[in-house]
Amino acid sequence: MDNGTNPLKVAVIGAGYWGPNLARNFSAALDWELVAICDKDTARAAALARKVGFPAVVGSVDELLTGHDVDAVAIATPARTHHAIAMQALAEGKHVLVEKPLADRGDAGRQMVALAQERGLVLMADHTYCYTPAAIKIRDLVFGGELGEILYIDSVRINLGLVQPDVDVFWDLAPHDLSILDFILPGGLRPLEVSAHGADPLGAGKACVGYLTMPLAGGAIANIHVNWLSPTKIRKMVIGGSRKTLIWDDLNPQQRISVYDRGVNLDCQELVRGDVTERTEAAISYRLGDTWSPSLEEFEPLGRMVAQFHASITTKLPSPTDGSAALRVLAVLEAASRSLAEGGSNAAVDGSGIELQEVLR
Amino acid sequence: MDNGTNPLKVAVIGAGYWGPNLARNFSAALDWELVAICDKDTARAAALARKVGFPAVVGSVDELLTGHDVDAVAIATPARTHHAIAMQALAEGKHVLVEKPLADRGDAGRQMVALAQERGLVLMADHTYCYTPAAIKIRDLVFGGELGEILYIDSVRINLGLVQPDVDVFWDLAPHDLSILDFILPGGLRPLEVSAHGADPLGAGKACVGYLTMPLAGGAIANIHVNWLSPTKIRKMVIGGSRKTLIWDDLNPQQRISVYDRGVNLDCQELVRGDVTERTEAAISYRLGDTWSPSLEEFEPLGRMVAQFHASITTKLPSPTDGSAALRVLAVLEAASRSLAEGGSNAAVDGSGIELQEVLR
Amino acid sequence: MDNGTNPLKVAVIGAGYWGPNLARNFSAALDWELVAICDKDTARAAALARKVGFPAVVGSVDELLTGHDVDAVAIATPARTHHAIAMQALAEGKHVLVEKPLADRGDAGRQMVALAQERGLVLMADHTYCYTPAAIKIRDLVFGGELGEILYIDSVRINLGLVQPDVDVFWDLAPHDLSILDFILPGGLRPLEVSAHGADPLGAGKACVGYLTMPLAGGAIANIHVNWLSPTKIRKMVIGGSRKTLIWDDLNPQQRISVYDRGVNLDCQELVRGDVTERTEAAISYRLGDTWSPSLEEFEPLGRMVAQFHASITTKLPSPTDGSAALRVLAVLEAASRSLAEGGSNAAVDGSGIELQEVLR
Amino acid sequence: MDNGTNPLKVAVIGAGYWGPNLARNFSAALDWELVAICDKDTARAAALARKVGFPAVVGSVDELLTGHDVDAVAIATPARTHHAIAMQALAEGKHVLVEKPLADRGDAGRQMVALAQERGLVLMADHTYCYTPAAIKIRDLVFGGELGEILYIDSVRINLGLVQPDVDVFWDLAPHDLSILDFILPGGLRPLEVSAHGADPLGAGKACVGYLTMPLAGGAIANIHVNWLSPTKIRKMVIGGSRKTLIWDDLNPQQRISVYDRGVNLDCQELVRGDVTERTEAAISYRLGDTWSPSLEEFEPLGRMVAQFHASITTKLPSPTDGSAALRVLAVLEAASRSLAEGGSNAAVDGSGIELQEVLR
Repeated sequence: MDNGTNPLKVAVIGAGYWGPNLARNFSAALDWELVAICDKDTARAAALARKVGFPAVVGSVDELLTGHDVDAVAIATPARTHHAIAMQALAEGKHVLVEKPLADRGDAGRQMVALAQERGLVLMADHTYCYTPAAIKIRDLVFGGELGEILYIDSVRINLGLVQPDVDVFWDLAPHDLSILDFILPGGLRPLEVSAHGADPLGAGKACVGYLTMPLAGGAIANIHVNWLSPTKIRKMVIGGSRKTLIWDDLNPQQRISVYDRGVNLDCQELVRGDVTERTEAAISYRLGDTWSPSLEEFEPLGRMVAQFHASITTKLPSPTDGSAALRVLAVLEAASRSLAEGGSNAAVDGSGIELQEVLR
Repeated sequence: MDNGTNPLKVAVIGAGYWGPNLARNFSAALDWELVAICDKDTARAAALARKVGFPAVVGSVDELLTGHDVDAVAIATPARTHHAIAMQALAEGKHVLVEKPLADRGDAGRQMVALAQERGLVLMADHTYCYTPAAIKIRDLVFGGELGEILYIDSVRINLGLVQPDVDVFWDLAPHDLSILDFILPGGLRPLEVSAHGADPLGAGKACVGYLTMPLAGGAIANIHVNWLSPTKIRKMVIGGSRKTLIWDDLNPQQRISVYDRGVNLDCQELVRGDVTERTEAAISYRLGDTWSPSLEEFEPLGRMVAQFHASITTKLPSPTDGSAALRVLAVLEAASRSLAEGGSNAAVDGSGIELQEVLR
Repeated sequence: MDNGTNPLKVAVIGAGYWGPNLARNFSAALDWELVAICDKDTARAAALARKVGFPAVVGSVDELLTGHDVDAVAIATPARTHHAIAMQALAEGKHVLVEKPLADRGDAGRQMVALAQERGLVLMADHTYCYTPAAIKIRDLVFGGELGEILYIDSVRINLGLVQPDVDVFWDLAPHDLSILDFILPGGLRPLEVSAHGADPLGAGKACVGYLTMPLAGGAIANIHVNWLSPTKIRKMVIGGSRKTLIWDDLNPQQRISVYDRGVNLDCQELVRGDVTERTEAAISYRLGDTWSPSLEEFEPLGRMVAQFHASITTKLPSPTDGSAALRVLAVLEAASRSLAEGGSNAAVDGSGIELQEVLR
Repeated sequence: MDNGTNPLKVAVIGAGYWGPNLARNFSAALDWELVAICDKDTARAAALARKVGFPAVVGSVDELLTGHDVDAVAIATPARTHHAIAMQALAEGKHVLVEKPLADRGDAGRQMVALAQERGLVLMADHTYCYTPAAIKIRDLVFGGELGEILYIDSVRINLGLVQPDVDVFWDLAPHDLSILDFILPGGLRPLEVSAHGADPLGAGKACVGYLTMPLAGGAIANIHVNWLSPTKIRKMVIGGSRKTLIWDDLNPQQRISVYDRGVNLDCQELVRGDVTERTEAAISYRLGDTWSPSLEEFEPLGRMVAQFHASITTKLPSPTDGSAALRVLAVLEAASRSLAEGGSNAAVDGSGIELQEVLR
């Protein structure tokens, strides 16, 4: 690319479930040029290419990186292949966007981030929910103090989902919740420990139902329920605050976000005086105020996401879902897997390499 | 009582939040005669008495037991007082009904059950949900094999609730869920261990948000989410089965129970042959069948409950919420408290005295 | 009654479906004394009396009016009997409260109002919804200009309802909607004409499904859908305004009222200039603002209603559901019956005797 | 087209709101070849062409019909232009698919149907809802007698909609409801008369809120509520039957169709004997049975629709949304406009040319 006036060239690797969404958005963006679709199954790649303006069809990553002039690649292959493909692309000097989770192991992710930093390239995770109008509004409300101190976060993401061949339900679904938490919490997602409980009642060889609990700063708690076996779909997050409580019901397009001026007040001055019983009874009061549902802008999150990928490349500034954000998510997932293997123990979260890029927060 | 033709005489102890409901139902039942309301606050007792046919107003348990001829008492006082009042009433030869939880400690409950057995008296817990049309229908469906093997149970009971002076959110709300599980599971509620995570983000001195996880037979898992800080009320239980999955949404009177013929099938024969990857992919299929919502009889659960109390006294047969059922609930709560104190460890559940009364199951 | 310190004495006539609700609320009110329950079926009256503090049981209106000292009567008998009972009670100098509809014919209602005025007695309709927290809040919002000009009102009140022996679905259910409209519209309910369409597809001898349409001031329209044959219950009213639109979903206790800052704006200045096509396209814009759900006070509407009945008697001031309000409702129902008989013609509404009592509005 | 092995060639006329959906589906269908996009705004046509495999871009219908070899055209332009474009295409021997409504006047539609018949060409309306899994399932249930006799149909289709420049809310939205009724009623939509009430409270020059009522066979009634001013979106149809009642809630993807075994039974034998009062009370009973929600196939309705267009061309058999179906819809709309102009009178529906094509029903 000579200057800012030419679009960046990108290839999408993987034409399965998610790749078409990425291809469609790169194709529609004026500052991107989609130059190739890469998939071992070239018929599948060709079928996708037909729908997105006939970019080249390529059957292997080697062929892509040697035979095509691209600035960036977007990887939408199974999680276990992310590391190898991303390392190869970074080694060839390409900026890399990776579908969630960044990798299927924490150390793999850390290698990817290290290589990108070393080469001065952008490595970004496609944590799509962080680019939704709802998540952006929630982040604004939390950062603006509208909810007060966070008291608890409860997230439910359940559905009759595809039992994945290479990852369990935690690694498949919880990246969504964890990346959202990382995005909307002012300090990012940095729990010291996490506890995971799961079940594989079908004998599928991996957890299909799971619960993830972690303490947050200030005595708060976060819980995530992920489930592949639910007959109904729920995607709901409750963010309880000391001032207000927010509910994000992602499947209710008519009222996705509700902010409740309802809650329990504890008067701390009274807590100092008096005996225990009296103080508790005296100090507690209840707010039963109005509910408010902000209107949300309407835009396609993936459109924002590919725009952010472009911006990060041109400005050199990190995105909200950069490599370090992805590592914070991986660190929790890794600890969750350890906890699960130990029957739900509190597993420490490895904090290496997960510093917040303050410039963006 | 001379014979079966005269109603049994009962007194309600406690005229606070729950006592009026008990008094109203005893008053309306033809086979019960409500003879007294007992409360330290006699004005409160008198106000209640006015609404339920003017039974006697009594200011203390001593006065009640010495001055009034009753066959039974119903205790609706704070949990910490259940043990003393029940022991006194049992010692005086009265049948006893106790609001949930049976006691605020497991050993207190076990003493109550032991004394009742020794004296040949009925001790029954007011686990109200076990007398709802929904729970009775669910039990029928589970016992009849309609759902197949239980795979997971997820229960959510959250609300902007009163922060209780003497118990935390687990002891306040989870008895509902646990007693339902005890009622609808063919083997009763007998997990070997339980893990509890909670938070007290307001500094109320006790957990206000809590999660309870326990393994069930056959690799299944049960999770209970209780919460006093939620701005909206949810009372929903999902019972995932190998054949069908049931959702009980207690706040949807138009469709309280839905049974989904949807789920994941794993073909076990294929699992024996082939290599791992192939077998898993080949063996998994999905059912996307119809949903069915059974009509439910309409009756007041507390009416059924006081009728069952009467039946247990006259027939000497245990009720579904007899002392041993109440002990199974207490045993889980006790283990949960231990787990909570230890940061979410897996705490063993004390199984003493919790045998199922087979005659009833 | 010597002075304001003694409660007023009231009898409830009719111990069927609605009478018990009235009896319970009169019984609970400190400024009322419930002295008798009157019903031809004295066993039914006695059963009710037992639950409300043992007032006298009386078998006929004659017996009630001659044998008991009452200030007021509350009539909860079938609609066709309202006129005779109320006329008799008014003639005996009693204040009268009547379950909706005030009468089953407009002229009967007008006679009742005339006699009450002549005798200086209070005649009030039990239009219960006008005493709900929701209706009171809506009236405040409309009167305060929050919604702007009313553009349309759409009300749906459907259920699997009892097919009434003496009235059709319009006279059974629409009094609720019409009395609410009368209450919340600044000018009261005074349409010049009304059109009714109905069906009796079961051959029950009267309309079981009905639609009522009437023009409101300023080009607005109101439509009411009443239905006894619906398998699900809906009670929902949409009040579209030029500034905001309000939805009252009475069966959603967690969010009964929602106020939407959404709508279509038509710029009137531009309408004057330009040609038709251009002007319309240029002038229309859309608002997609926030939604707001006000918290509502919690109280029992019938408690408010009996308090208002008391206040009207003692202050001589009309209530929002006084005789003239009831006549406005009857006038629309009468016109609706005429329209129905004529296949849906626009039937003129008789406006005699329906002046608003300005003192209250 | 030489034989059945070559795809049919089609052009889409109109690249505005709906054209892209048609273009996408023709482009994806193997038995269609999308050869051109035609729009006065050629930039808009070109933008669409880029997304659907780069068909030719054409700026006028003349140019399309003279310069391009097409078997069929699909018209997605404003309603007032349908007639002229369709007549021109039919005259040139092209099969024609027209977005709803077929035309903006009944006689225009009848001319189009007549010319198509004369030329032996397919003229089909894009009544999209008739190709949804829900409508197809409902038709099966109605035709199979599952609901019994139809008692009433209530349809609500409201939203904050675009105020159309050339049609009012009846002509914009009610074609959906009317075409569904035509599709699911065994005799097709053939009411003898219709009554329409509407309002233009904004002064937009046309009705923005409307109600359409029509008698159906056997004393049943159908009502349609269409509204451009509603802040929330509702698309719900209730089909009350003598055996069961069905509710189609199109915005509830998790339970689009519910079939309720609930209703009112009237015992006709008893109706013959006895006096009026007795008979009515004796004869009425209530069913409170289960609810059933059938699973629905998942497919894109427009895919089915373009497949049906192809099938009608190759087989010469009429489709469920052929010209005569479209005329039945137009005839009701025309009568509705007359009724509206006359203040809601019962306007006769012109039945000419609307015979059912029995082969398909």
